[in-house]
Order: sequence, then C-alpha cells, then structure tokens
Amino acid sequence: MKDRFIPYKIYLEESEMPKYWYNVRADMKNKPAPLLNPATHEPMTASELAGVFCEELVEQELDDTTREYPIPQEIRDFYKMYRPSPLVRAYCLEEKLGTPAKIYYKFEGNNTSGSHKLNSAIAQAYYAKKQGLKGVTTETGAGQWGTALSMACSYFGLDCKVYMVKVSYEQKPFRREVMRVYGANVTPSPSDTTNVGRKILAEHPGTGGSLGCAISEAVEVAVGTPGYRYVLGSVLNQVLLHQSVIGVETKAALDKYGVTPDIIIGCAGGGSNLGGLISPFMGEKLRGEKDYRFIAVEPASCPSLTRGVFAYDFCDTGMVCPLAKMYTLGSDFIPAPNHAGGLRYHGMSPVLSQLYDDGYIEAVSVPQTKVFEAAEEFARVEGILPAPESSHAIRVAIDEALKCKETGEEKTIVFGLTGTGYFDLVAYQKFHDGIMDDYVPTDEELAAYAAKLPKI
Amino acid sequence: MKDRFIPYKIYLEESEMPKYWYNVRADMKNKPAPLLNPATHEPMTASELAGVFCEELVEQELDDTTREYPIPQEIRDFYKMYRPSPLVRAYCLEEKLGTPAKIYYKFEGNNTSGSHKLNSAIAQAYYAKKQGLKGVTTETGAGQWGTALSMACSYFGLDCKVYMVKVSYEQKPFRREVMRVYGANVTPSPSDTTNVGRKILAEHPGTGGSLGCAISEAVEVAVGTPGYRYVLGSVLNQVLLHQSVIGVETKAALDKYGVTPDIIIGCAGGGSNLGGLISPFMGEKLRGEKDYRFIAVEPASCPSLTRGVFAYDFCDTGMVCPLAKMYTLGSDFIPAPNHAGGLRYHGMSPVLSQLYDDGYIEAVSVPQTKVFEAAEEFARVEGILPAPESSHAIRVAIDEALKCKETGEEKTIVFGLTGTGYFDLVAYQKFHDGIMDDYVPTDEELAAYAAKLPKI
Repeated sequence: MKDRFIPYKIYLEESEMPKYWYNVRADMKNKPAPLLNPATHEPMTASELAGVFCEELVEQELDDTTREYPIPQEIRDFYKMYRPSPLVRAYCLEEKLGTPAKIYYKFEGNNTSGSHKLNSAIAQAYYAKKQGLKGVTTETGAGQWGTALSMACSYFGLDCKVYMVKVSYEQKPFRREVMRVYGANVTPSPSDTTNVGRKILAEHPGTGGSLGCAISEAVEVAVGTPGYRYVLGSVLNQVLLHQSVIGVETKAALDKYGVTPDIIIGCAGGGSNLGGLISPFMGEKLRGEKDYRFIAVEPASCPSLTRGVFAYDFCDTGMVCPLAKMYTLGSDFIPAPNHAGGLRYHGMSPVLSQLYDDGYIEAVSVPQTKVFEAAEEFARVEGILPAPESSHAIRVAIDEALKCKETGEEKTIVFGLTGTGYFDLVAYQKFHDGIMDDYVPTDEELAAYAAKLPKI
Repeated sequence: MKDRFIPYKIYLEESEMPKYWYNVRADMKNKPAPLLNPATHEPMTASELAGVFCEELVEQELDDTTREYPIPQEIRDFYKMYRPSPLVRAYCLEEKLGTPAKIYYKFEGNNTSGSHKLNSAIAQAYYAKKQGLKGVTTETGAGQWGTALSMACSYFGLDCKVYMVKVSYEQKPFRREVMRVYGANVTPSPSDTTNVGRKILAEHPGTGGSLGCAISEAVEVAVGTPGYRYVLGSVLNQVLLHQSVIGVETKAALDKYGVTPDIIIGCAGGGSNLGGLISPFMGEKLRGEKDYRFIAVEPASCPSLTRGVFAYDFCDTGMVCPLAKMYTLGSDFIPAPNHAGGLRYHGMSPVLSQLYDDGYIEAVSVPQTKVFEAAEEFARVEGILPAPESSHAIRVAIDEALKCKETGEEKTIVFGLTGTGYFDLVAYQKFHDGIMDDYVPTDEELAAYAAKLPKI
C-alpha cells in the first residue's frame, strides 16, 4: 500500500475546523457580472434584493472584495454536528484500478440531508433568524436541498415552506417524509397557492412541474408574505461562499499531510459543490501562487458549461427572479429524464461561469450509464453508495486515474463526493435492468432554446 | 455549554483503533449454555458445527476462555473504510432536555449497510475466504444484515446468497437494490429453492415469510452446497465477539477523556449491538473492578427478555438449526407488525440471556409510538434520522436523562445508535399520520407459545 503514513480518512480536530469562509470573488480580476432587475435590466441594488433575500445575505451576494468572512459561532456550533467531513484517501479504488495516481475524496454525505447542501442551509437559516424573520421559502427538486433547509430551520425554530417539484413529490415520498420529521411545510409545485402556479396549471394542467417553476412559486410567496424571505441552495454567490467550507477543510486536511493536488474534480449543476470545493485552491491559482487543474463534470443531458451560451438569462421559469449572466441552456430548457436531479438546472453559478469563460476551469460532460458504471465500481471497493450527482465526479476521477495508469504519472486527484444515493435506488434499479436513458440534446434543440434567450 | 473540553465527536486516530476483540465469556462465571444438536439434544461438537459454519468461526463460537482475540489485519483494513465510528456527545439533546445528565452515543450508521451489522459481516466473510470457500448464505429481514454481508462478500470476492423475508422483499425493494449493487443473489423467502421453503409454501401458500423460515432455507442451502457455509448476523457468540469492536472503541474514546459512564443502554433484538457495546464494560463489572448499569431495550411487541422464558429453544422455524438456551418467546412466535425489523426475533443471545438471568443486565420494553416520539425529538436536535431499532435506546436514554433532571444527578449515559432510518420512512409516515400500531401480546398468548417450547 502506497503512502501508508497517510490515514484512510483525515478528520480535522475541532480546533482545526475552519473559522472563515473564503470568498473567491476577492481574487478574481474579472468579477462575476451583477444580477439585473428583470423589469429594468439595471443591476439589482441591495435594497431591491433585500425584498427577496435576508439583509446580511444580500451583503454577501454583492461583496466582491472581502476575501475572508468569519463564520458566526452559532453556525460553527451546528457544523460540529456533522462536520468535519472526512477527506478519504481512496486506497481501495487505487488498488482496484491499478493506478499510480493518488486519489482523495471529500465526503459530504454523512448527514441526514445526505449531501453538502446543509452547509449553506444552516448559514441562510441563521441569518434569517438573526434578522428576526418568521420563516423562509424555497424550492426543491429531488429533495436534498429541501431536507437540508428543513433541518436548519428546525434547529433555529423557523418556519420552512418548501415547494417541491410535483413529479418528485409524488414519486419520491421518502424525502418528503424526512422534511416532515423536521417540521417543514411541503407543497407540490405547481400549486394553486400562487399566481404563477395557477397560471402554469391553467396552461399545462397535467404538468409534473420543474425546478424553475418551483423557484417562481417560492419567490412569490416570500415576497408576498410579511416576515418571510426566499433562500436558494445553489447558483448564488452567497451559496458558493458558504460552501467554501468544503474547500477550506479539504485544503487544511491536505496541508496537514503536505499533499498538493494536481487535479480537483467536482460535479456541477448550479455549481455550489464545485465552487465550494475549489474556492481556496482557485484563490491560489488566481493569485499566481500555485497551479491546479479544475474539472467541472456535468451530465450529457444538461450540458450548460460544455454546450451552453454565456449570456444573461432568467434563473426561473416564471421570470420573477433577477437575471444572471451565466452559462445557460435557456430558462425553459427541460433536460431529458436524468437521475441526477441536482444537475438538471439550466444555468450555472455566475462565479464559475466567469472562471470557466476566463479559462481557469475545464468542463466535461458524461453520459448517465457511464456514470452509474463508475458509481457501482466505487461502491464495491470504497463501501459508500454514491449519489448519482456525485458519481459524475467519480466517473472523471476514474478516467483521469486510468490515464495516469497509461502514462505512469503519479498525479494527485481530489474529487468531491457530495452525497449518498440512498434515495436514488430507482435509478440504480434502471441501471441494473439495462433500461437507463442516455439521451443527449441535439445541436438544433440547443440552438432553438438559445435563440429564445433575453436580448441584453 | 457543559464540559466544553470534550468535543462533539470523538474519533479515534487510526493508531488508536482496536487491535483485539474482547470475548466477554472469558469473564463470565456462569458460561452460556452450549448449543444442542436438534436431533440428539447433545451439545454440538466442533465438527458438527463445521458443516454449517466456517472452521475458525466455530472455534470462536465455542471458546469461553480466551479473553482477547487479535483482529486480523485484513479485517482491520476493511474497518478503516467506515471506522472508527464517532462517539458523539449529545450536547444539543442535553440542552433540549434541560438535563444535568451527560449523554453520549456511539453512532454506527455511517456506512452503506446503515448499521453496525457490517462489523460482523466483514469478519465472517474474511474467515470464509480464508477457508477457501466459494460463498456464503444467509437470511435477512428488513435488509441491513443482507446489505452488510453483500458489501463484505463483494470486498473479498465471495458469492453471497441472501434469503430475504418475502414481505420485505416486496415492500422494501430499495435494500434489495443495494444488495444488487454489491452483486448479491437475493431470493424471496419462502421459496421453491429449498425443501423447507417448498413445505412452508405448501402449508401456507400466501405467506409473507418470517426470519425463522428464511434462516431454515439459508442453512439448508449452505449445508447442501459444496463450498458454502451459513453465516448469521446476530444471536451467536461469535457475532458478539466481532461486535465487541463497538464497545472497545467506545471505551477507548471515553478513557481518552477520563469519562466513566454510569448507565449503558442499547436496543436488543438478537443482542449483537447491545452485546458488542457493553462487552469491555461488562468485563470490568464481572471482574469486580467497576460497576455500571446496563439496560437492554426491547419492543413491547416482542419482549423476549422482559416477558420470555429462559429455556432451550429452536433458533429457526424449520428446526434445522441447533437449539440454544436463551430468553425466548417460542420459535413460532410472530410479533405484531413492528417497524423495528431488527428487533423482531423471538429469542436473545445466549450470552446476554445468561448475563440477564444472573442479574448483570436490566431490561425494559417500550411501545412503538413512544419510540418514534423519541426518534423525532432526537433527529431534530442531533441532526441524525435514527433507525427505529436504535430509537428504542434513544427512548430510554431520554427517560433516564429526564430522571436526572428530577433528581439533579449528573449521570453519564452512553447509548448505542446502531443505524440510520433512511429505509424506514414508511414507518415515520405512519407515525406522523397517527396510524402506528402499539399492540402488546397478552399473557395468554405468550403462555400458549411458551407451552410449545421443546422439553429439554
């Protein structure tokens, strides 16, 4: 066994846990483009944003210059419940692959929400509580974010209204039940509780809903209900800031053993995990101190970075949210059925979009079946049943490790294992039964959606 | 916050992880009674047992004198995948309860099998591989043990045939699918693949099966197939030996911070978790070095310790297994529907039965609804969604902590949190919907079953 002085799992001591979030925007020369008011196309002001988001979160959203944000003690206390997450050296996977590469993964799935989403949920709930709000609203697709937010709201005694994409609400009752354990109010979307929901239901009576539609409903309720604000689990700058705890911990754990990665890999849907994981490393790259390869992995069925357009677009279907400049497939793009619910968003974090456009990040897209092959191979040797989302990163980590096997290079590869697949077993079943779909949109389809982007 | 010098979670370093299993039988004055041949009623010899179990496991089963067993390096390597499990100080629960008690729990759920069962699965698979066997057979109810064994067999490249209680096979397809990820062959029981299965199907064509029946089928296949042996996830002495890793780690973690528990609590079905957790502490008590209170918690619907008989009984429905002297409700006792599948066994580990009979252990039984109340209270403050089985221990830990609140005593309570409830959400749903059953068997019912015990 190589490097036996490095343990299988590196757990930071409580005293070594991060006290700061790292704001990568502070080191970016080209800052992410501002959010625009959908009516005026002017940059959103803090006071405009404060109608939707909590005040301190608005500050974080707009702050492109402060490099380090102290993590409030209350949030650090909550983090102790499920953090530090382990940085695992994948000795068994390396052996199975017969690669000279050294593979590490940061495992964020050891909590009831089953993913990294809890890192930002607790931060957003904290600031809502601090502002004296009564509750928050949000949307959820497969349910990870909704579960995470329910847990955070339960901890601080906040109301939590979740709009859950109807098809998931009906087909995935278990995540819904977990949210109920934590006292959340869960409504299938589209619903008749909002104007936008009623409009969509009138136009498409049988619709199973979409994330973009659920966002519109949650925002409408937040803006229209005194004492409520809206919170979002990905895409936003503030979310990447909170998720930087993943990268700061990863870097601390690697530094402790004198390890410098060559390649850092993460799946990318809205970008919260990848953005969080790479943040402090990207800072070093942006400051010219070190060089790393960063690889964003997206599903071939929803390829916003690899085949999308870098342009201003709506974040939601109902077009009530601000416009963001990002790599996008168009706000009404509906990806083919894909079991990585967390990677089905049409756009990408403005921060990551800018970094990608500036050439600091690579991106690849992978077909679903290949992803599940990697998932199963990983599960059998590393013992963790990975989420479909996370398995996108596993796929590319394995591919890179196999390249090392060919070349003999001893590269150090780090990837983000964002969560567990306990609620995704229907997908595994389809994979085992050989009936998994690998649909990839055609150039013509994507061009048709791109043609409908707002002209800004 | 009390005792802030003790971290939320104590993780042992790799170098501090147990190198020995602790065999509590070595310190027992009254040894557990031997297994009997069901035909002759004579004690089973090693060579008789070797037709069913692997050779080294037979040695472990029969060894009442060796106090410490070195854990083979291959097993310790596998343990590193998911161990050490954290010993968590339940600061948030203490605060919520307003108790002066200090509560710790040993959390065994951070692995894909979702429970402590993996500790013995990997040991049994290792000895099967070492003996050059082709594969193993076993039964599973809700699926934790089957999943654990599938993972262990996949790691060592062994065939794994699992007989899964039919009603679970049909109603809980997700655990079945996880076993498939790990390459196991899963058959619903009763099945037409065995004599005992065909007999039961002929007598009860519509039956949903039972654990006792699935055991009979798995044993029949193991005994009748060259290169196969049978493995069992609980009850046996060898399983308690393997599970002692829980207690040895717990004790090492407490010793590190100079903490001595007053009360140690665990749920008890077949006894593997409780037996493992208390082992080294019980050793100290048996040797007269220290005193502890040990509490076994069982469901009111299946109260083998609190309302059963201490007698020889069959371990399975088909009566093909050896007879064990244990607290039992009778081998054909079928408990009322209860969502803690792991606690529905009619008997109890002979080791624990003897210790209970000798007065070293207390036992209490608790109704299901009260268990789920505790589960939800725990989930909301500690962030972990507990398995229904584990929640039995939570219930009594909370009850003991509340007694401390009344008396002002600062007792230290340790309990075993054996696993997570991600596959038990139908049960949580019933709890939320107020349709959970709390059936308790009557004295007459229990007496009728007891009257049918074999006369030995």
